[in-house]
Amino acid sequence: MKLQISKTPLNDAIQDVMKAVPTKTSNPILTGIKIDADSHGVTLTATDSDITIRRFIAAEEGGLTIIDVHIPGSVVLPAKFFSEIVRRLPMEKVLLEVNDLFTTVLRSGKVELQLVGLDPEEFPSLPQIERNHSIEISSHLLKDMIRQTVFAIATNESTPVLTGVLWTVEDRKIKFTACDRHRLASRETDVPIDSDIRINPVVVSGRTLNELQKILPDQNEMVTIVFSDNQILFRFRSILFYSQVLDGTYPDTTKLIPRSFNTELVLERSLFEDAIERAYLLSRESKSNIVKLSMNENQSIEISSSSSEIGKVTEEIDAKEISGELLKISFNSKFMLDALKVIDNDWVHLGFTSAMHPIIMKPLEDATLMQLILPYRTMN
Amino acid sequence: MKLQISKTPLNDAIQDVMKAVPTKTSNPILTGIKIDADSHGVTLTATDSDITIRRFIAAEEGGLTIIDVHIPGSVVLPAKFFSEIVRRLPMEKVLLEVNDLFTTVLRSGKVELQLVGLDPEEFPSLPQIERNHSIEISSHLLKDMIRQTVFAIATNESTPVLTGVLWTVEDRKIKFTACDRHRLASRETDVPIDSDIRINPVVVSGRTLNELQKILPDQNEMVTIVFSDNQILFRFRSILFYSQVLDGTYPDTTKLIPRSFNTELVLERSLFEDAIERAYLLSRESKSNIVKLSMNENQSIEISSSSSEIGKVTEEIDAKEISGELLKISFNSKFMLDALKVIDNDWVHLGFTSAMHPIIMKPLEDATLMQLILPYRTMN
Repeated sequence: MKLQISKTPLNDAIQDVMKAVPTKTSNPILTGIKIDADSHGVTLTATDSDITIRRFIAAEEGGLTIIDVHIPGSVVLPAKFFSEIVRRLPMEKVLLEVNDLFTTVLRSGKVELQLVGLDPEEFPSLPQIERNHSIEISSHLLKDMIRQTVFAIATNESTPVLTGVLWTVEDRKIKFTACDRHRLASRETDVPIDSDIRINPVVVSGRTLNELQKILPDQNEMVTIVFSDNQILFRFRSILFYSQVLDGTYPDTTKLIPRSFNTELVLERSLFEDAIERAYLLSRESKSNIVKLSMNENQSIEISSSSSEIGKVTEEIDAKEISGELLKISFNSKFMLDALKVIDNDWVHLGFTSAMHPIIMKPLEDATLMQLILPYRTMN
Repeated sequence: MKLQISKTPLNDAIQDVMKAVPTKTSNPILTGIKIDADSHGVTLTATDSDITIRRFIAAEEGGLTIIDVHIPGSVVLPAKFFSEIVRRLPMEKVLLEVNDLFTTVLRSGKVELQLVGLDPEEFPSLPQIERNHSIEISSHLLKDMIRQTVFAIATNESTPVLTGVLWTVEDRKIKFTACDRHRLASRETDVPIDSDIRINPVVVSGRTLNELQKILPDQNEMVTIVFSDNQILFRFRSILFYSQVLDGTYPDTTKLIPRSFNTELVLERSLFEDAIERAYLLSRESKSNIVKLSMNENQSIEISSSSSEIGKVTEEIDAKEISGELLKISFNSKFMLDALKVIDNDWVHLGFTSAMHPIIMKPLEDATLMQLILPYRTMN
């Protein structure tokens, strides 16, 4: 392999694939980035076995030559050092040449690097995807759906399937569900897909979604998602992002969700969020995170929490609407704060069955997002 | 104590004194901020026994009432929670009232907080300073002097006195010296002081200097430094910053510094720094940080380093001047990088005695700053 490449697009592509390089691994080849060059351009690939990211750099872009491939070929270079040094090369023009035993020479200005390369034949091959079904979704919407659900996954790995987000495609809608047994977040959206196409539910790990969110473009672009039995593939721009899906059956969470409410409440989100934040600061000092919400006759609610070491905080907020039985209910303030932070509406609707039943929170007049929080059972 | 205070100046003052609150302590009173109120205003004090920070908020500023003290008094409030909650209070107007047993009520808008306060009599009293000698220095210059030396202190505590910076005041100059036995940084500047005034050398801990640097104002202002036997006091704006000085005799470092050079080199700082940074990235992979500098006949130098796992890097830099014997010398690239980053001049002067003697680095035509690095003894 022998080629000349521009530093900036090379650096951008390296930063993208770096997200799949494992920080710890017992397999040396996975600490590398695979580079393949042919007359069309250069492809970079990195993988940690669960996630694989592939990024293509075209030889020409907008009439400009980005890469000049003299001899096609492949090599695997040490990812961490390669990514750091390319960014710091003195000139935009970078020469890359693979010699015997995969020793790779990198030249830029008066800098010469000799890197110990590895055999590309030893690098894992790309996951197999039988491309049966795919959907298209905008990157902004996909980012929102991830942000509004992924925080509610379980971090404890006693039930591995709960460390992922359940994706279900049904009735021309895609729905994300995350649940850690104490709270549940779900978000759905319409997708243009034939209604007779059947896509099996998949569970995508939180790690995959967090890395995907970082690599999705800031500009709004279409992302193609391809579903297969044990893999999911995201395709956008010149990037292929593969991830294994989690094994196991996701529990049925529909029975958790109450069908009707005995009490309903509409609050200004920012006022409610600020009050919960103050109560959270105090409640976390007693490590319980318990906060109490009491509804008053005068169309207001009281938020309070206490800690024997620090003291207590009480505050009143006017409600836009209170209907039904006036309740006192206690819950985890951190969970409430997490849920409120992803409700982008100015008004939030809360529905209650009793002080012992789940709290259901939605943006006012928007049923696509739902946040569920189980209350604490307290003495008063 | 009963008073009304504006949130913003209170919050600013809390953030300043918070820097002295210990993150860990077995003495509960030290986790608090002491608040003293009288007709002139409010004083906040925090201490970790080594560092004490006191900040005064005047009742009036520029004709505006900041504080309205109804009943003077004192209380100690839990620092971490108090600092977080004040920032998040809904209104600028904050009411503070101390009741029986130091229970303190804080009110802002519809928020009411009850804090468990502690007895101010239990809070340590201010360090005693016999105000014999003091100097004045601008805050920008003091920040520069700290930044250019403090990185070279020892982190290992086998010789505690080396974890501080030595301050000597002599011949109307103040000089900072830091040394970890492998490198030394020194910086001096003129101070307007009577030449017959004798101030004993003091060693100020790295922690004190790092916290001081954060709290020194961004605008250039005069700082008064008061020296006493076991304390040093910095006074600026409405802040008093006390610190204990380190015990023990600082070693005589003057004999480390060569009187004359056999080789001298002048380099463009940014070119040299970039080259050392690239070599450092590679050298740290072999955990040695060893980089080699070789001087060539053609008025250039070569920087190189290698790691058996990653490979090697070599690059050439043109020198502005080389005089004397051409040397090959090896050194710790991290130490060289640290030293180069605090040289603000465009050109750097390096002086060498031999490959076995210390490297002396200074900004070109500026003798107030010196960086010394001991070379590695290598086979070639």
